[in-house]
Amino acid sequence: MSIAIIGAGALGLYYGAMLQRSGQQLHYLLRRDLQAIKENGLHITSPAGNFHLRQVNGYADVTEMPKVDLVIVGLKTFANDQLEPLIRPLLHDSTAILTLQNGLGNEERLAELFGAERILGGVAFLCSNRGEPGFVHHLSQGMIRLGEFNGGLSPRSERIATLFNRAGVDCEAIADLKKTRWEKLVWNIPFNGLCALTDHTTDLLLNHPPTRQLVQTLMNEVVAGANAQGLSSPIDAAKFSAQLIQMTEPMNDYRPSMMIDRQQGRPLELDAIYAIPLDHAAQHGVNMPQISMLFSLLSLGELDKGA
Amino acid sequence: MSIAIIGAGALGLYYGAMLQRSGQQLHYLLRRDLQAIKENGLHITSPAGNFHLRQVNGYADVTEMPKVDLVIVGLKTFANDQLEPLIRPLLHDSTAILTLQNGLGNEERLAELFGAERILGGVAFLCSNRGEPGFVHHLSQGMIRLGEFNGGLSPRSERIATLFNRAGVDCEAIADLKKTRWEKLVWNIPFNGLCALTDHTTDLLLNHPPTRQLVQTLMNEVVAGANAQGLSSPIDAAKFSAQLIQMTEPMNDYRPSMMIDRQQGRPLELDAIYAIPLDHAAQHGVNMPQISMLFSLLSLGELDKGA
Repeated sequence: MSIAIIGAGALGLYYGAMLQRSGQQLHYLLRRDLQAIKENGLHITSPAGNFHLRQVNGYADVTEMPKVDLVIVGLKTFANDQLEPLIRPLLHDSTAILTLQNGLGNEERLAELFGAERILGGVAFLCSNRGEPGFVHHLSQGMIRLGEFNGGLSPRSERIATLFNRAGVDCEAIADLKKTRWEKLVWNIPFNGLCALTDHTTDLLLNHPPTRQLVQTLMNEVVAGANAQGLSSPIDAAKFSAQLIQMTEPMNDYRPSMMIDRQQGRPLELDAIYAIPLDHAAQHGVNMPQISMLFSLLSLGELDKGA
Repeated sequence: MSIAIIGAGALGLYYGAMLQRSGQQLHYLLRRDLQAIKENGLHITSPAGNFHLRQVNGYADVTEMPKVDLVIVGLKTFANDQLEPLIRPLLHDSTAILTLQNGLGNEERLAELFGAERILGGVAFLCSNRGEPGFVHHLSQGMIRLGEFNGGLSPRSERIATLFNRAGVDCEAIADLKKTRWEKLVWNIPFNGLCALTDHTTDLLLNHPPTRQLVQTLMNEVVAGANAQGLSSPIDAAKFSAQLIQMTEPMNDYRPSMMIDRQQGRPLELDAIYAIPLDHAAQHGVNMPQISMLFSLLSLGELDKGA
C-alpha cells in the first residue's frame, strides 16, 4: 500500500519507519529532518532493536509527492490550519485519511475538508522523542487503536489494523472511536498539562502524594465528561484510571509531548486537549473545574509567545 | 518606645525605618544587610520620598540586643522554628510581640512559646522589595491592621496603632484579628501562589481573562472558608474581591513575595498561606478544591529543594 506521512515528528517517523520496514511504500513530508534523512537515511533506536532505513522517500513539498492510498496525519494540532494544502494533493478517489493527532476535533476538521467517508482516527500509546536530525528514539509502547469517524467496524479499518500488526505495531480496529478518543484524554489531560505547567516529569508527579491525588482527580473529571457523551459503554473511572497510572509508573522520567513543546518554545496543543473537551463536556452539562483551572494556567504561558 | 525588628527583610526594614525616623528607638537583627547598613546606613526609596538613616542599631546576634517594649516579627514563616531563640532574649515582663508575618498559625505559635497575653498580630498591605544590601524599595501602600491575639480592642493595640500613624504608616487597631487575617488571605492565596507557580506578575494574571476569572474563583473559595470560621461579621465575596482586584490593578507588574522566593530558590510559605487555611476550612466543613490544586502544584516545586 502507498502511504504518506504528513507531520513527520517522532510519531509519524516511527510509525512510517515500521510500516516501511514491513514492505509498504512510504512517502514522508519532511522539514527539520529532510537533509539528514536524504544523506544518511532514518535511524530508529528502540528497546525492541535499533534499525536503519537507508532509502527513504522524503519530500520538502507535498505537491512533489505521489497520490497515495492512505494518508497518516501526525501534525501538531496547532498546525491544523495547514491540513487542506498539505493533504489535498495526495488524494485519489479512494484515499483514506487516518489522523493520529492528539485530542478532539481533528476528524471533524478533516471531514469538513475532505468528506467524512474518507476519515479514520486513531489514538497512539507511544513514547518516542526525536533525537538529532534523522534519529527517532522509541522509548516504549506503541499500540494504536483506530476506527472510522462515521463509527462502526469497517473492512477498511480492519485492513489498516492488519497493516500495522504485520509491521510489528500492536493495533486494534475499534467501533467506538469517540470512546477511544476520550479514553486517551484520561491520560493526556492530567499528564500533558501538569508536566508542561510544572516542568516535572510523570514520575515526579506520581511520586509526590498531593500531585498523584491531583492526577486522579483530573482523571475522574475527564471520565465524568466522557460518560456524558453517549459512548457505547461507560468508562469505569476507578478501574481505568488505575490501569493508566499502572501503565505510567514504568515510563519513569517521561516527558509528555506538551512538556517538550513548552521546553522548546513551541505552541501547546491546548485546543485539542483542553478547550474542545471542556466545550464538549459543558454541552452535555458537565463542568470540569480542575481541568478548567489547568487550562487557564497553561493558556497564560502561551501569551509569552504572542500567540 | 524601644522596638526590635526580627526578620529584617523588605517589610521589617521598611516599617522599622519609618518608626525610627519618627523618633522611636529601633534595634534590628540583621543578616544579609548587616555589613552594608553598618557602613552606610539604611536607604529607603519610596514614591512618598526617599530617606536615609545614617545611624542604625544593627546586630548579628540577638543576645547582644537590649530587652525591648515591642518585638515586631517579620520573619518568613518557614523559619518559625527559630522563633523561640530569636525572641526570648528580647523580653521583659511586659514586652508585647507583634507578628506581621503572612498567613495563619503565627500568633498561635508565639502564644504557645511566650503566652497569649503578649501577642498581637497584624496584616500589612505593603509592596516593597529589597534592593542591594542596605536598600529597601517601597513601591506602594503600607497600611497595617493589627489586633490582639486574644481578641477585642485593647489600649495596647490602640497605642501601637498610634505609633505607626505618627510614623506616617496608616494603621488601624481592629477587634477581630481572625477576620483580618482571612481577608488578607483573599489576596495572598490567589496572587502569591499563581504568580509563583506561573512566574507571571499580577498584571499578567489580571489582563488574561481566564486567569482573571481563576483569581476570582480562588477568592470566592477563600471567602467561603473564612465565613465558616465564626467571624464577627461575614465577608461579602463579590464586594471584597472586587475591591482587592481594583487595589491590585495599579500595582502593575508586581511580584508577590512568594514569586520572589521561588525565583531566588528560597522555600515558599506554603504552610501559613495554604496548608493551615485549608485545614481550618476543612475543620469547618468547607472544601476549597481549586486552592487545594494550587497548593499541590506549588508543593511539587518544593521537592527540588530537598525540603
